[in-house]
Amino acid sequence: MADKVAFLGLGIMGRPMSANLVKAGFALTVWNRTPDRAESFAAEHPGVRVASSPLDAAADADLVITMVVDAPDVEQVLFGARGAAESLREGALVVDMSTIAPTASRQIGERLGAQGIGFLDAPVTGSRPKAEDGTLTIMVGGEAAHFARAKPVLEALGALVVHVGPQGHGSMVKLINNTVAAANALAVAEALVLARTSGVDPAALRRVMSAGSGGSAMLELKAEPMLAHDFEPLFKLDHMLKDVRHCLEEAEALGVDLRVGSVTAERYGEAAQEGLGNCDFAAVVSVVEGPASAEVPTKKT
Amino acid sequence: MADKVAFLGLGIMGRPMSANLVKAGFALTVWNRTPDRAESFAAEHPGVRVASSPLDAAADADLVITMVVDAPDVEQVLFGARGAAESLREGALVVDMSTIAPTASRQIGERLGAQGIGFLDAPVTGSRPKAEDGTLTIMVGGEAAHFARAKPVLEALGALVVHVGPQGHGSMVKLINNTVAAANALAVAEALVLARTSGVDPAALRRVMSAGSGGSAMLELKAEPMLAHDFEPLFKLDHMLKDVRHCLEEAEALGVDLRVGSVTAERYGEAAQEGLGNCDFAAVVSVVEGPASAEVPTKKT
Repeated sequence: MADKVAFLGLGIMGRPMSANLVKAGFALTVWNRTPDRAESFAAEHPGVRVASSPLDAAADADLVITMVVDAPDVEQVLFGARGAAESLREGALVVDMSTIAPTASRQIGERLGAQGIGFLDAPVTGSRPKAEDGTLTIMVGGEAAHFARAKPVLEALGALVVHVGPQGHGSMVKLINNTVAAANALAVAEALVLARTSGVDPAALRRVMSAGSGGSAMLELKAEPMLAHDFEPLFKLDHMLKDVRHCLEEAEALGVDLRVGSVTAERYGEAAQEGLGNCDFAAVVSVVEGPASAEVPTKKT
Repeated sequence: MADKVAFLGLGIMGRPMSANLVKAGFALTVWNRTPDRAESFAAEHPGVRVASSPLDAAADADLVITMVVDAPDVEQVLFGARGAAESLREGALVVDMSTIAPTASRQIGERLGAQGIGFLDAPVTGSRPKAEDGTLTIMVGGEAAHFARAKPVLEALGALVVHVGPQGHGSMVKLINNTVAAANALAVAEALVLARTSGVDPAALRRVMSAGSGGSAMLELKAEPMLAHDFEPLFKLDHMLKDVRHCLEEAEALGVDLRVGSVTAERYGEAAQEGLGNCDFAAVVSVVEGPASAEVPTKKT
């Protein structure tokens, strides 16, 4: 008797995640702000119900997943007009898999808690390919009992599902991870630009760095697109910038001085101002290259 | 008919590297500034000759390896009083495995070249354990013919031996790698301090980061010592700072703006000023923790 699941938000990530829930046998209702995407998804996946609103989607659900962009979007689908919270019954569980600020997560959790509805913040790492393969990493904050209940659903979506602590801590871990990833990617960009400028073969540099202390997931994933200026978005620069800024806000509130985090926000901010916000975050290499990078043709998508 | 090799500098790295050359069957002469270390090495490795000076060491050598701290030390052992260059015969080859500035490497190469002596800059990555196992990564700049000649010797020391380009490029790749490593380690330090301050379980954070976009060699190697404040030096903070500064100088000369590199130099510089220069560079976590870190007992060695 698998839970009935409602999935709200069929974007780059939400759509393949929903497909994996269907594959795992969950009874699924979907809703998307632009209805076309929900209709086309249901057309490809017989048995999936398309809801006309979050309220409609949540009406018969045991578990509601939200996968949208930021806190205001989560609040809108839960508490806005025809929001899910209107129809959710006591004892239901909301799992927010968007990446939002820990403070916002905790506020949403309190508001739902007052209605007797459980809440987990369960953001993910891994871009579209891992969403497709069901191999995301999912970091979950909230009560242990809620985590236990959501686990079978989350395991259909991720290869590593970790309960990291109480409410808000899933978001916190996600923000920290992404800030480190953004910083590591920027360090790779600086390395590649300096190599090219000094006449060092970037391929030899990569080989050496991969084998040793300079190695990172970002080197493996982003060096190639950076060198080729292939910025087709697996994870948009604007979204990365948002996460780094949220992380800095949390750090500032706690009195922790993230010096690398700050220059990371600075550089991604410059890239966004240059109109690269919808590119993959690998596009940060362009601001490191400086005006000279205009020579390299940029593939925007 | 293996080359006769002279090894100058039996420090943390040089000693285990020399042991691997003995194991590989090279006829070895060693010299060290403080003679005790050379004597004790020879006592453990019968057949090794202890030289009284770099001049003495180089007199019968086909290939001379220098493994000292910085450019002035390399210049001293080669061109100083009773330096190796005085006795090296035409056609001999010097391989500098220290990490020095590319500019200095090129100057030394020119000076030796004028005497008909070949030169390779061949710095390494990997700390003492990899020096012991003969699994260093070695990045080599210089002429292809010289590289071919040194290769059997270098392969006794490293698992990955890469010819990265002409003279100076080995050093350049090394400096870039170390700057990225130092930056990645600082990003890990910021992540761990923010996690601890916000109440997130650092072990859960590490698990998530290792599996995803926040993963790096530095996370695997330095998170544990940073959390435990175990700063026994595998690679001294002062040496890391030196490398980052050299890298920034090269970048500045080429007009490349290394923003992450700059804050990295800043933070390691603060750590050095706090007296942590002889600790492992993991000690940079202390400056991120700020004055509160005085609570955590620091193991200095």
